[in-house]
Amino acid sequence: MERLEKQLSFLMEIDRQKEIIRQTYLSDGSRKETDAEHAWHLAMMCMVLSEYANEPIDVPRTIMMLLAHDLVEIDAGDTYAYDTEGNATKRQREEKAAERIYGMLPEEQGNTLRMLWEEFEAMETPEAKFANAMDKIQPVLLTDRAQGKSWREHQVRMSQIMERNARTHEGSEVLWDYIRNVLEKNADAGFIRREDGREVSSPL
Amino acid sequence: MERLEKQLSFLMEIDRQKEIIRQTYLSDGSRKETDAEHAWHLAMMCMVLSEYANEPIDVPRTIMMLLAHDLVEIDAGDTYAYDTEGNATKRQREEKAAERIYGMLPEEQGNTLRMLWEEFEAMETPEAKFANAMDKIQPVLLTDRAQGKSWREHQVRMSQIMERNARTHEGSEVLWDYIRNVLEKNADAGFIRREDGREVSSPL
Repeated sequence: MERLEKQLSFLMEIDRQKEIIRQTYLSDGSRKETDAEHAWHLAMMCMVLSEYANEPIDVPRTIMMLLAHDLVEIDAGDTYAYDTEGNATKRQREEKAAERIYGMLPEEQGNTLRMLWEEFEAMETPEAKFANAMDKIQPVLLTDRAQGKSWREHQVRMSQIMERNARTHEGSEVLWDYIRNVLEKNADAGFIRREDGREVSSPL
Repeated sequence: MERLEKQLSFLMEIDRQKEIIRQTYLSDGSRKETDAEHAWHLAMMCMVLSEYANEPIDVPRTIMMLLAHDLVEIDAGDTYAYDTEGNATKRQREEKAAERIYGMLPEEQGNTLRMLWEEFEAMETPEAKFANAMDKIQPVLLTDRAQGKSWREHQVRMSQIMERNARTHEGSEVLWDYIRNVLEKNADAGFIRREDGREVSSPL
């Protein structure tokens, strides 16, 4: 029973993923979503949108990657996309978290999940590229529905979103084209700042 | 783009799964979990515990079944396990919900998801039996961690839990054995009522 006890301890530990709050609001703007809800939503997106992947992907593998990709945030916390300081230490905090959390499982299971996470982070395989695209596209779709709420709160600039999405097209050109239009529409509405934060100092 | 618009409308509609609140508390008792969090947790449990299925199962198929099994609750709401009246009308409310929600998708995708839900409900395949076991076992594990909070609030009786779990063993004898011990421990602690609600009227 020692093996089962380990597995159940892990499964109860990851319950805490429901208490990590992201910066993205639900589509009705009522509250911010949790990491667990986010992971579920990405998995559903992958099921429905996999036909738009640039290269053929193993859908179940990608779904499992998405379900588990944020587990390290149980210890490392969610780092907001546009938090420069937080992102500087993110990798180190997450490595340490991975050791502890995947280490709770029987060795071969912990290794499997950890390798899925490493694959997601490395963003080299078609599956990891598509999974990363889902992870970037989902907050745009939600924030668009929520009238730009989190973009407005953080006064996010288009250049920041573009930088963060520099590789989204590697997962899906079709979806990235769609998302670019959504972003333009939100910039037109004033929900995303276009001017890159610089003052317009002179008409020259 | 009509196909993509349909898919995205569906994916934004199911965002509401994050607003359906279940009766089960998180393991720390701080609040009740949402349907989306529940679905994510069941999928993770399936990844980790599939070795205990009575019969070999197709794990990815079971994961997809679990991710989508509660979508009808967007319209039909969560029916608490021990709500007799609610359960009498549950099937009818859920059928109607299925028509609308799966109907938002391109036809073949809607049919695929609906068939997964029907399979889950029919509980005949090894995948559906194991998925149902996950669905029944998860609230027991969480409520055990939360010192029986939802059992105490609803004064749940052991006979009710046993009735609800009458078929859990069909998914996994090993896990059901484990869960029975967890339930006994909680009955010993007074968190689950043993006496089936009848008054002890006479020493005879």
